[in-house]
Amino acid sequence: MIRPRLTPLAETLPATVPFVGPEAQERARGKAFKARIGANESGFGPSPKVQAAIAAAAGEMWMYGDPESAELRAKLAEKHQVSAQNIVIGEGIDALLGLIVRLWADKNAPVVTSLGAYPTFNYHVAGFGARLVAVPYEDDRESLSALLEAVKRENAPLVYLANPDNPMGTWWPAADIQRFIDALPDTTMLVLDEAYGETAPAGTLPPLDVTRPNVLRMRTFSKAYGLAGLRCGYAIGEATTINAFEKVRNHFGMTRMAQVAAAAALGDDDYLQSVISQVAACRDRLTKIATDNGLQSIPSATNFVAIDCGSDGAFALKVMQALIARDVFVRKPMAPRLDRCIRVSVGPDAEIDIFERELPAALAEARG
Amino acid sequence: MIRPRLTPLAETLPATVPFVGPEAQERARGKAFKARIGANESGFGPSPKVQAAIAAAAGEMWMYGDPESAELRAKLAEKHQVSAQNIVIGEGIDALLGLIVRLWADKNAPVVTSLGAYPTFNYHVAGFGARLVAVPYEDDRESLSALLEAVKRENAPLVYLANPDNPMGTWWPAADIQRFIDALPDTTMLVLDEAYGETAPAGTLPPLDVTRPNVLRMRTFSKAYGLAGLRCGYAIGEATTINAFEKVRNHFGMTRMAQVAAAAALGDDDYLQSVISQVAACRDRLTKIATDNGLQSIPSATNFVAIDCGSDGAFALKVMQALIARDVFVRKPMAPRLDRCIRVSVGPDAEIDIFERELPAALAEARG
Repeated sequence: MIRPRLTPLAETLPATVPFVGPEAQERARGKAFKARIGANESGFGPSPKVQAAIAAAAGEMWMYGDPESAELRAKLAEKHQVSAQNIVIGEGIDALLGLIVRLWADKNAPVVTSLGAYPTFNYHVAGFGARLVAVPYEDDRESLSALLEAVKRENAPLVYLANPDNPMGTWWPAADIQRFIDALPDTTMLVLDEAYGETAPAGTLPPLDVTRPNVLRMRTFSKAYGLAGLRCGYAIGEATTINAFEKVRNHFGMTRMAQVAAAAALGDDDYLQSVISQVAACRDRLTKIATDNGLQSIPSATNFVAIDCGSDGAFALKVMQALIARDVFVRKPMAPRLDRCIRVSVGPDAEIDIFERELPAALAEARG
Repeated sequence: MIRPRLTPLAETLPATVPFVGPEAQERARGKAFKARIGANESGFGPSPKVQAAIAAAAGEMWMYGDPESAELRAKLAEKHQVSAQNIVIGEGIDALLGLIVRLWADKNAPVVTSLGAYPTFNYHVAGFGARLVAVPYEDDRESLSALLEAVKRENAPLVYLANPDNPMGTWWPAADIQRFIDALPDTTMLVLDEAYGETAPAGTLPPLDVTRPNVLRMRTFSKAYGLAGLRCGYAIGEATTINAFEKVRNHFGMTRMAQVAAAAALGDDDYLQSVISQVAACRDRLTKIATDNGLQSIPSATNFVAIDCGSDGAFALKVMQALIARDVFVRKPMAPRLDRCIRVSVGPDAEIDIFERELPAALAEARG
């Protein structure tokens, strides 16, 4: 059949999704999960004040959102003690990652990341025809030295680093990240993904420096704030760097609801702090569950815990599949070495109870 | 200062916005508008049932949306009597337009539209480095013959047509659109933007034909459904064509709230019909207001009316500015000939009352 031809680049791209959603798995299984602890969402939910703000704004949804997200940017600027010009809002960090690749990585340009790091970033790199250069993790952490070496060797315009890391939950202290930043070539843009920043120990996030044009600090309302379903992320950076997004972003892409909810979330710090405490307590609980089952967990600064299943990737895959068969939605890292783990998100006790109950049988099934 | 270099394409792009939002104008003016009838939003608001569904879903916003939007696509498939494989959901038609350009228009490829048609489409064409070929309107309608001629002359891979049209509100009967479709080269993708389809007279939208790989029918919840603030649009097309979006779309970009609200909106057809009636009545009222002021309005199939201010573009601009100074947010077409008009969205009587009260003085000021 004769049809319009895709661009040569689009022709080469697979029709793929970085992650299969839990709903798709539920449709395939024909039944719902009992514990949704696989996507690093916050089962503690958004603040009651945010929920009230959402309900109150329902009738206003006939209006497009403010394309400048001015009110939200002003609140974020105050929170971070920067100017609104240092902040761009996007439809989750995911959307901003796509724009970053589009702005700074030309076709065939080398883009550096870690092997096993965030697949959605890789999806965008492929989608714009850039060339992914992935360096291995080292002791379950992204290797700052290997990333830096690859950046210099390739003369890469773009490098991705998550701190704390996903999928392992590990982190570098701020001083190490700062040394990495200082050592980067001025011509290399660092995407420093701090989606899990709120749940990290003090001293993990380097101070913001919005005079530096080659660092973008990525933050989100999807994790600790419990608003993944409203898609609201942002980048903090030097003003001219931030202004580049105006060239390509979908100016009217933000929902008014996300703007309302995120602004309300910033106004309820008590709730955020309570979530952070619950996340920490649940990490401890997940660690104990691992230990009780003779497994080791990887220390985590995030809202999930990677649990080392004690064998290889094939075994951990069986454990994950056995958990899924027991209605527990979890995921796992796929890269060599990392793949010995399953990744379990924190959540309310009721969901963790189910995980605790099902894990021994899942392990037995995987072993047997 | 040394900084990461933008791609050569990004370097050439201006930091621009297709439209300045009313909120930005309010900030610049230092005061709020009293009538928000400039962005073709639906001041009648979303259905009360939709508002209830939004409020009820607030607590679920910690979950990412289903990346496949399966439930919503199933409902839309049923409504349109097509398969879910014939539907892709996106963050408003705006986002889908960007993906369409990216998929089918390579750098420097000619892309055909009408001079004065939807600026956001043009923004995406520029953003991906394609080359815009714009043909003039004819008697305030998009010229099907000129579009077709340009497509053939340029061997264009992509052409944009809105029916009904924005910013003029005019439309072609389905039979003319069908002839245009039939005459298109098989290798040219038609973006048929039917954002205003619900408010058009019967016989405006050609039957859906999802066997044809070179037509994308664009629909939205932003207009008649009153959900612009939640960003939910979709394209209907042949399955392989629709599947191409899987290569590049932001799979987790849809908010769960948009999915919930759009599904609820589809369940309240009575409300939709009542809005359509109110839109028609308000168009008549806007026409009468124009006549009462000695002006002619352009017949409209949309939720707005273009009012011919009876002189040139400079005069109509003054009228618009005088209205804005009187706290009435309206917009206007900018292309030659079309620019003699202002564009006024329908809305609740209270807002139209304000327009009616302020228009004579605005005209007098523009004349004086």
